[in-house]
Amino acid sequence: MSDYDLVIAGGTVVTAADSYGADIGIRGGRIAAIAEGLRGAERIDATGLLVLPGGIDAHVHLDQPTSDGTVMADDFASGTRSAAAGGNTTVLPFAMQIKGQSLRACVEDYHRKAQGACHTDVSFHLVITDPTPQVLGQELPALVRDGYTSFKVFMTYDDLVLNDAELLDVFEVARRERALVMVHAEGHDAIKHLTRRLEDQGRTAPYYHGQAHAQIAEREATHRAISHAQLIDVPIVIVHVSGRDPMEQIQWARARGMKVHAETCPQYIALTAEDLRGLNMDFDGAKYVCSPPPRDADSQAAIWQGLRDGTFDIFSSDHCPFRFEGPGSKDNPRARTSFKWVPNGIPGVETRLPILFSEGVSKGRISLQRFVALTSTNPARLYGLYPQKGSIAIGADADLTLWNPTLTRTIRQADLNHGCDYTPYEGMPITGWPVRTLLAGRTIAADGRPVGTPQGGHLSRLTSEAYS
Amino acid sequence: MSDYDLVIAGGTVVTAADSYGADIGIRGGRIAAIAEGLRGAERIDATGLLVLPGGIDAHVHLDQPTSDGTVMADDFASGTRSAAAGGNTTVLPFAMQIKGQSLRACVEDYHRKAQGACHTDVSFHLVITDPTPQVLGQELPALVRDGYTSFKVFMTYDDLVLNDAELLDVFEVARRERALVMVHAEGHDAIKHLTRRLEDQGRTAPYYHGQAHAQIAEREATHRAISHAQLIDVPIVIVHVSGRDPMEQIQWARARGMKVHAETCPQYIALTAEDLRGLNMDFDGAKYVCSPPPRDADSQAAIWQGLRDGTFDIFSSDHCPFRFEGPGSKDNPRARTSFKWVPNGIPGVETRLPILFSEGVSKGRISLQRFVALTSTNPARLYGLYPQKGSIAIGADADLTLWNPTLTRTIRQADLNHGCDYTPYEGMPITGWPVRTLLAGRTIAADGRPVGTPQGGHLSRLTSEAYS
Amino acid sequence: MSDYDLVIAGGTVVTAADSYGADIGIRGGRIAAIAEGLRGAERIDATGLLVLPGGIDAHVHLDQPTSDGTVMADDFASGTRSAAAGGNTTVLPFAMQIKGQSLRACVEDYHRKAQGACHTDVSFHLVITDPTPQVLGQELPALVRDGYTSFKVFMTYDDLVLNDAELLDVFEVARRERALVMVHAEGHDAIKHLTRRLEDQGRTAPYYHGQAHAQIAEREATHRAISHAQLIDVPIVIVHVSGRDPMEQIQWARARGMKVHAETCPQYIALTAEDLRGLNMDFDGAKYVCSPPPRDADSQAAIWQGLRDGTFDIFSSDHCPFRFEGPGSKDNPRARTSFKWVPNGIPGVETRLPILFSEGVSKGRISLQRFVALTSTNPARLYGLYPQKGSIAIGADADLTLWNPTLTRTIRQADLNHGCDYTPYEGMPITGWPVRTLLAGRTIAADGRPVGTPQGGHLSRLTSEAYS
Amino acid sequence: MSDYDLVIAGGTVVTAADSYGADIGIRGGRIAAIAEGLRGAERIDATGLLVLPGGIDAHVHLDQPTSDGTVMADDFASGTRSAAAGGNTTVLPFAMQIKGQSLRACVEDYHRKAQGACHTDVSFHLVITDPTPQVLGQELPALVRDGYTSFKVFMTYDDLVLNDAELLDVFEVARRERALVMVHAEGHDAIKHLTRRLEDQGRTAPYYHGQAHAQIAEREATHRAISHAQLIDVPIVIVHVSGRDPMEQIQWARARGMKVHAETCPQYIALTAEDLRGLNMDFDGAKYVCSPPPRDADSQAAIWQGLRDGTFDIFSSDHCPFRFEGPGSKDNPRARTSFKWVPNGIPGVETRLPILFSEGVSKGRISLQRFVALTSTNPARLYGLYPQKGSIAIGADADLTLWNPTLTRTIRQADLNHGCDYTPYEGMPITGWPVRTLLAGRTIAADGRPVGTPQGGHLSRLTSEAYS
Repeated sequence: MSDYDLVIAGGTVVTAADSYGADIGIRGGRIAAIAEGLRGAERIDATGLLVLPGGIDAHVHLDQPTSDGTVMADDFASGTRSAAAGGNTTVLPFAMQIKGQSLRACVEDYHRKAQGACHTDVSFHLVITDPTPQVLGQELPALVRDGYTSFKVFMTYDDLVLNDAELLDVFEVARRERALVMVHAEGHDAIKHLTRRLEDQGRTAPYYHGQAHAQIAEREATHRAISHAQLIDVPIVIVHVSGRDPMEQIQWARARGMKVHAETCPQYIALTAEDLRGLNMDFDGAKYVCSPPPRDADSQAAIWQGLRDGTFDIFSSDHCPFRFEGPGSKDNPRARTSFKWVPNGIPGVETRLPILFSEGVSKGRISLQRFVALTSTNPARLYGLYPQKGSIAIGADADLTLWNPTLTRTIRQADLNHGCDYTPYEGMPITGWPVRTLLAGRTIAADGRPVGTPQGGHLSRLTSEAYS
Repeated sequence: MSDYDLVIAGGTVVTAADSYGADIGIRGGRIAAIAEGLRGAERIDATGLLVLPGGIDAHVHLDQPTSDGTVMADDFASGTRSAAAGGNTTVLPFAMQIKGQSLRACVEDYHRKAQGACHTDVSFHLVITDPTPQVLGQELPALVRDGYTSFKVFMTYDDLVLNDAELLDVFEVARRERALVMVHAEGHDAIKHLTRRLEDQGRTAPYYHGQAHAQIAEREATHRAISHAQLIDVPIVIVHVSGRDPMEQIQWARARGMKVHAETCPQYIALTAEDLRGLNMDFDGAKYVCSPPPRDADSQAAIWQGLRDGTFDIFSSDHCPFRFEGPGSKDNPRARTSFKWVPNGIPGVETRLPILFSEGVSKGRISLQRFVALTSTNPARLYGLYPQKGSIAIGADADLTLWNPTLTRTIRQADLNHGCDYTPYEGMPITGWPVRTLLAGRTIAADGRPVGTPQGGHLSRLTSEAYS
Repeated sequence: MSDYDLVIAGGTVVTAADSYGADIGIRGGRIAAIAEGLRGAERIDATGLLVLPGGIDAHVHLDQPTSDGTVMADDFASGTRSAAAGGNTTVLPFAMQIKGQSLRACVEDYHRKAQGACHTDVSFHLVITDPTPQVLGQELPALVRDGYTSFKVFMTYDDLVLNDAELLDVFEVARRERALVMVHAEGHDAIKHLTRRLEDQGRTAPYYHGQAHAQIAEREATHRAISHAQLIDVPIVIVHVSGRDPMEQIQWARARGMKVHAETCPQYIALTAEDLRGLNMDFDGAKYVCSPPPRDADSQAAIWQGLRDGTFDIFSSDHCPFRFEGPGSKDNPRARTSFKWVPNGIPGVETRLPILFSEGVSKGRISLQRFVALTSTNPARLYGLYPQKGSIAIGADADLTLWNPTLTRTIRQADLNHGCDYTPYEGMPITGWPVRTLLAGRTIAADGRPVGTPQGGHLSRLTSEAYS
Repeated sequence: MSDYDLVIAGGTVVTAADSYGADIGIRGGRIAAIAEGLRGAERIDATGLLVLPGGIDAHVHLDQPTSDGTVMADDFASGTRSAAAGGNTTVLPFAMQIKGQSLRACVEDYHRKAQGACHTDVSFHLVITDPTPQVLGQELPALVRDGYTSFKVFMTYDDLVLNDAELLDVFEVARRERALVMVHAEGHDAIKHLTRRLEDQGRTAPYYHGQAHAQIAEREATHRAISHAQLIDVPIVIVHVSGRDPMEQIQWARARGMKVHAETCPQYIALTAEDLRGLNMDFDGAKYVCSPPPRDADSQAAIWQGLRDGTFDIFSSDHCPFRFEGPGSKDNPRARTSFKWVPNGIPGVETRLPILFSEGVSKGRISLQRFVALTSTNPARLYGLYPQKGSIAIGADADLTLWNPTLTRTIRQADLNHGCDYTPYEGMPITGWPVRTLLAGRTIAADGRPVGTPQGGHLSRLTSEAYS
């Protein structure tokens, strides 16, 4: 008689604190034992492999409509397939309110889109774009109680931006309901001003997106968001921090005891503004257009320092995929007239973990423990998924990623599973890849390919540990 | 035969660099000689006195209409009389654009108000409240060429506030025309949010004005203004800095080479938020309502450090007088319902120099040279009045203040010459008072009283030295 | 048939990353299973208790001779008994070289003292007081290879101080041999200067010890040690950091990528300089004399911030016990003539964990995970004991502390097991106490009392993770 | 009948505060009038020229013996001739105590050397190398009362270095006697350690002097000196600050209200460590050996920022001339074996003002007022020469430098008047040169050449304004 449904045998178990050799016994989809010499009905040999908590990608855009009608390259099926192949077991996409829309209706919409399609577990952050009294006073409190315990607000984009009064109102509700607010911190008016100036100078190539979205504008908005949060006494997360200047604001705030958390992404360690040049300042640069844009080598060094020293709590993909070929980008005449019409966002949910592992762990910049903390444990804690998710612990969901730390392969679009038609990391050599992903003990991906039918569910979440 | 029209004999001449005994010979309203043993048609004995460059108060509100119809307590006649009695020879009031109004028409209005009324020289800063294309594209450039080389913008007040896009537009024009922008840096939405919260809590006494105008909101707006100026690469002045937090932003910016100048005022060294309590949290606190509000002892210490070490370039009054008795404040029913309806501003043009001298020079916190630099030379240089004004130099206007450094007297409303019916500094003991003020060699005040008829003129100004 | 020798059942397992309910199965003195429903030959019911990795006190002085002949209050028997009762399973005492002595001989001496006496495991740090060519060139390299992978150096104390040249030489050897250097950072000459001045003023009571050991002197030495380590490119630990000023140096250095680790101690969160006043400035203050001395409430707040945000890696006791009664202190005529003759050091190995738990975890200042990291996992990693020690992991020694998080008791000398005749924390109320300590699966203490005979051993250590 | 002995007519008078056209009337060697249209017995036409307060070089080494017998290239005659030709009217050389020597005897020695030889006024700083009780308790207090109100101490050089205890003792005396201490801040042991390591590696060329004198060692000593001064509460001057790192310490200290002043020198804006390479790492690099050594472009930028923003109070030459040809350097066999035997010091008293004017004023980095403040007014104030020296003021000595701001000439050794056989600035193009130097109204240099016989005297000095 077997003690366990499944045993992962002979691997090296890694948590945010430890690494050690042990078998893992799984029963009923949960981790039931971490021990030597376990026996199970099924057995996976993990000799030579790392056994990691499944990756949690806390910042993923899937199947969102865009204001200009461009279709996002990933829906929930392809996006979560790609995530699973990249070592993830949970992704946190956004339920993005359209102005005028009830937030509850918005959430229901996204549930419909996700229904039956997900290969990983998912849970929605709520994007507040229209903070009416109805939304703030009734819908949000009810939704938080239903387990949607995080909101996102934008300080830029014409159709998404909240002004400071709205930001403060959302922060106030968040504090009252103990929800965590994610902030996209870039100064809207500054970006528009710079954009207009660049356009007036005939500087309209994708490259100039990086100039328009100046780091100063990001730094200013970061300081502003932090100050507003300090006034309300509410914890926030500054998402997708791109460089040294906004980081300095975050460190300054923390040293004064303010409750500021921070996220960064692969594009800020693996790309620079130079990538937006494309081939000789042409439209190929559009493949790297995201906001904030990648910066420079100095900012990359700062980001690494911040990943190491705890300035950053989480490392997400900000996966936001648009196809390059076709009407969405390359053949969009408007996008050719100005960088400002190029869809903002790049794919990355599948390459997030390999890039951080290879550039971070394999190159000795961060420890295995930091890798796990940044990519799984901390997102779980900050977003109320812990202890169900985010670690290898008795009673937790058996969401596990088996990782071959020495496997060397180059990133190729041809090998990826997302709906996008390119990867900005094409040709990047990577040492260390996921070889099997298990969700609640079931294998959902192996050797870079999804396995099986979509059986991921939606997760109701607890209050963020930012409140403890 | 006399060499000079007038000789100031036997005093100690003080400039921003030096102090030494010498006579000053005046001819044709200008300083013609600094020497030993001069002879003049007229002679003023300055034995035992300091001879200072006349005070330049770079931040004075006179005869401005207010949105609620409250009448300002000083017009140009009483305001400049008060200034002269307080040792000033030049004041820089504001020509405050009303929304919808042509800026040129606004300037002409203020010239009419000032015409023939001024006891000191005056020169207008332009307040931009409605930056239409007409104003930005045509009126401002023409006015700068006419010598109105400084603008002021507000980041708060419902009827004055510019949003960030407008701020950037004004900065852009300022850079192109080489004008200097003064910024009232307080975060409008934050203040409104806090105000509403305090009102909801029934906290409506004048005291809560100080809570609503939180230092965090001032710090945030300071950072924002500095960032926008950095983006445009234009020098700015952060006016009336109240405490340690905005100061830290200014010092941070300067250490990185940004072109930020700073002003502080008497209320930030001589008052604290406690003064707004009045007598037991009553309406008497309204006498101290100004924005930003006075802070605490720690901020006072920081301000002194900044006055000493050069963080502050200029020390102005922000004279903005409203009568306490009568319909404007005490008997205004609306002001009784909430601090937010209390007129914002306190009088101070007459007490600015004595307060800084007594608390600064007499108490050994700053040198005589810093006193002159902060109150006359630096304002002249920053606002394009130098070398005509701001020092004791051959060829400069004979604008001089004779100062008795040991005269001890208490500030009393009964002794002041402004149009206000109270002083927030009532009862403050002062060592060091002006005893005679000369404008272009003519005595305009003596022993705390104005002398003679108004003969001050309006000054066209040069480009600020912030551009050199 | 039992699977395990011993099962700890029903507790909450806590590591530096996680907390979750599970049984722990122990076999052969090591942790063999973490799982649900384990069966063992023996069973300890841990319902309602936390199961923590055994405490590792990385800074303990035992049985050291002193220059004036004072006998230390704890030998290895009493010291490790006290440690075990306080929830510790490993202590790192010092093998303190006497000038002129061979370091190898010194180590052998301490092994003799410890032999057969230890209730916990122990491992020696080497204190270098006489860095002769023989010591630096031959003894140290050999000792590091034998597993003595950390040194300590003193920047003060007449008989221990190294000058900067010696410090640099030791750092150079440490770098070459990949050993970690612990630095007692206080400026010797500054302390002597202040001491002489205080004595000249007749200020000789124990209270003035706190004045003589000024925080400025600690800050200066911290900067100096950091700079020297930076020159040599060697990682160091600044031990027993007492306040805001040296912390600022450490944070400054880390933000610039320097390899500086930091330790603090209970006395810097639970005592202040005021405690040295004793009863009305009398000799009772001698009970609180340690170096650096406790500071003030502001420094306590800074230390808490640093414990939370990662500025501090480890929290040790700096247990250094001297009896108050008798010839060592109270009846030492020389100590009565000047604070400088009062033995430096206070007991604390038994109260370290309860104080941090109660003030930190119970009061919500730090998480359980930080508690475990600071008191066990990080010391194990920094000092080369990991993965044998420092966590609850398969294969690790079964060194476990069962902790009752709600047990409330007051610290009383009468209840303690150390050799000292007082505790500086007398009367301090504590919520959260260890109730059982297990070393390699054997109970060595229960309910505040040691259990069984001394069976602790000496641990050879690996290279510090500061080198990875 | 003439009113004045001499009139400087038609120039632009420049002080640390002002610039304006005026004549200067001189009577009895002092400035008696600054006015329009003065008449004098003698007249110098200064049309088109700046009239500056004579340069005060506060850091000059003349005729000092060296420990290895090398003869300094300038005695008081040649050194002050060179100074006068370079626009200076006062230099402050050092009376350098030899160990074992009475300080009073040392001072008398230097007076003998200077007697009758000086073309400028001079005044000695006292270098304390042997702080015996006799020196500290009796000689220093008496010498301060005699007007030697500044000391210098060295934190490096085998024959000069004071340890920290000695440093503190000197600071204590300085505080008591209100003398100002100049500190050469480089960490002696660190430099020796690095030197030995470089020598062991065969890196002995002059270039490695720059490596051995690492900026970290300068930063550490700067922090140490500042901390010791803070403990004693005495003002100090950190002399010859070379780069960004020590500057950061000074700014950090000042922002906290510590009394730290700072000096920098031409070599830190006009040279870099690359200059020490000579021609292909050969001995020609010896021409640039000074301590601290020049750094890099980043430090040059920092120094400029500090000259502009007030971090630096004074700009001196640290003139310390050794001949390159002959036994002192190039033909010194010992100097060939290691950079550490190369005489430390470079000439610069004659080129100090032109370099700062050309690189600073002519290139728009600093204003004329800052130039005067840094090179004359501030040194006069800090070292107790003001108001006799340091400005253009009634009653001050008529020490004036006429400056042609547009004269362009290249620095050539052939044109200089010092005793050295090279200049490190050979070939540097300069816009702005002194064309006449007057001491007490007498011309002592014209067009780059000394004029007349040496008539400079020794100045007794007042207490530094650092104490006010």
